[in-house]
Amino acid sequence: MAKPVLTILTGNRDVTGLENLRELADVRLAADAGELAAALPGTEIVYLWNYFADGLQQGWESADALKWVHLPAAGVDRLLFPELAASDVTVTNARGIFDAAMAEYALAGILYFAKNFPQARANQVQNLWKHYGVSNLAGTRALVAGTGSIGRTTARLLRAVGIETDGLGRTARDGDADFGAIHASGDFAAVAGNYDWIVLVAPLTDDTRGMLNAKVLAAMRTSAVLVNMGRGDLVVQPDLEAALAAGDIAGAVLDVTTPEPLPESSPLWGMQNVLITPHLSGDSRSHLPAMAAQFEANLRAYLDGAPLENVVDKQLGFVAVPAGG
Amino acid sequence: MAKPVLTILTGNRDVTGLENLRELADVRLAADAGELAAALPGTEIVYLWNYFADGLQQGWESADALKWVHLPAAGVDRLLFPELAASDVTVTNARGIFDAAMAEYALAGILYFAKNFPQARANQVQNLWKHYGVSNLAGTRALVAGTGSIGRTTARLLRAVGIETDGLGRTARDGDADFGAIHASGDFAAVAGNYDWIVLVAPLTDDTRGMLNAKVLAAMRTSAVLVNMGRGDLVVQPDLEAALAAGDIAGAVLDVTTPEPLPESSPLWGMQNVLITPHLSGDSRSHLPAMAAQFEANLRAYLDGAPLENVVDKQLGFVAVPAGG
Repeated sequence: MAKPVLTILTGNRDVTGLENLRELADVRLAADAGELAAALPGTEIVYLWNYFADGLQQGWESADALKWVHLPAAGVDRLLFPELAASDVTVTNARGIFDAAMAEYALAGILYFAKNFPQARANQVQNLWKHYGVSNLAGTRALVAGTGSIGRTTARLLRAVGIETDGLGRTARDGDADFGAIHASGDFAAVAGNYDWIVLVAPLTDDTRGMLNAKVLAAMRTSAVLVNMGRGDLVVQPDLEAALAAGDIAGAVLDVTTPEPLPESSPLWGMQNVLITPHLSGDSRSHLPAMAAQFEANLRAYLDGAPLENVVDKQLGFVAVPAGG
Repeated sequence: MAKPVLTILTGNRDVTGLENLRELADVRLAADAGELAAALPGTEIVYLWNYFADGLQQGWESADALKWVHLPAAGVDRLLFPELAASDVTVTNARGIFDAAMAEYALAGILYFAKNFPQARANQVQNLWKHYGVSNLAGTRALVAGTGSIGRTTARLLRAVGIETDGLGRTARDGDADFGAIHASGDFAAVAGNYDWIVLVAPLTDDTRGMLNAKVLAAMRTSAVLVNMGRGDLVVQPDLEAALAAGDIAGAVLDVTTPEPLPESSPLWGMQNVLITPHLSGDSRSHLPAMAAQFEANLRAYLDGAPLENVVDKQLGFVAVPAGG
């Protein structure tokens, strides 16, 4: 049986596990969007190893044999252009790979502010030993917006260190295994004032775009800290900038921004109550080999005619799984 | 029955719970060491509310009725001068009050380096969005030097977030409830290379002074991070400075230094791989009322002739309790 054509968008990055894939498929490497478009005729599978790159849309008309696109990322918002969403092409993502690292990132951001490390740094650059107030986690409350696998792993970690943790999802529900309560996204402003830490990990969809806006910020505690590791566009960034500048909330940890890279001119860079990281909350010592192994396993299933794992619901914009899954 | 005379060294700080104490004792307030010496004749109980202050030793000859000294701190090293150690005066401390906050501080310091927040800050002051490597906790290993209540609470928290955690104590032992294994302090250099995170919370005694020295630093992983929240003198500070400057270890989080305050001229201030905080790892929103309530409860026990809690073994230099206690 002929091997399927697998085209990998590399972005000029080394592709972990490439030799294994060559045994299973007829591999074409495309460094950028232009090369991807040229390689699409006859391509059955596209593997977007450089998952920050766009490019599939511009070659879409030449995708004459495409059946499956794999994006080794959690969020597929940049991939789901209308033609792909309307097609029969299957889309899979890297659900699960980033869960533990992102949960740790959220906790790191929370502790950074709880222990007032921004003040420690500000004093340190002045060689200044001077006492200041710090807080602690016991009795504090977190709201995690996003009840998928990352949100659940985050909730479990925050609860393990003593933070009462609720969720914010499409629909309100009680009795969840990982969250104390799950509120409906539409009630965000109504409940935001009950929390010390608000963590955004929701997928970016028409429903979630701009969910953290002036109304929610006004409802938040002045002592509250935002951690955004979902997508920059979950936040109305000018509203956030205004709230941080005015001290309406205490701080923000931003792994995602609008746009990315965050422009050098952004006022966020200069704010002492903001910590910015360059979209790395899912990174770990093991995420590259884990991403490669996950795709290889799915490719073997594909060749066997078995169901694929982590198939994205292209209408919802994420992998829909039962609660607790 | 006459109330006992209770002299409180206030250091000019407000004494939380003072009104309650006035109901139980004949209270004298001493702002500093000189006032303490003047107040000592007839004093039965000394409460060192300003627990960073010295001063009892210089008035010792006039302590003609002293039976009990309470230090609302964890470490009693600065208090245990020879005359007090040799006397019949009971010494109690604030064992337990700082456990949770200090455990959180250790985790905050570990995550600060695991997620490479020092690099984030260095890039942020340049308005620079640039990817860099970060690590994660899964599979990492911590060694906690100090197996008292702070060390045990720290070990439980680190294990709750997935860090394999061993202890370093006076004697080696297995089968501990909180630690994977407990190594003997004498083997510090032999085992140091097995850990990613080394946390110092041991009491400062003749046995532990300078325990973190050039030999141990040379054995540590170049990727390892030190968290010292015990006492500055647990570390041979020039050895640590040299190791940090040479990159022999990856970083240090220092809540305690030699001396305190850390002099403005110390090279530690300027090191990007060092985070310095001014002896606040035990602080929280609740430590002041908790300290007051703990002393008041012990004072009530004293008045009832009941045994006191948290009596320091003045020869060992800390509260000796059964393992797991």
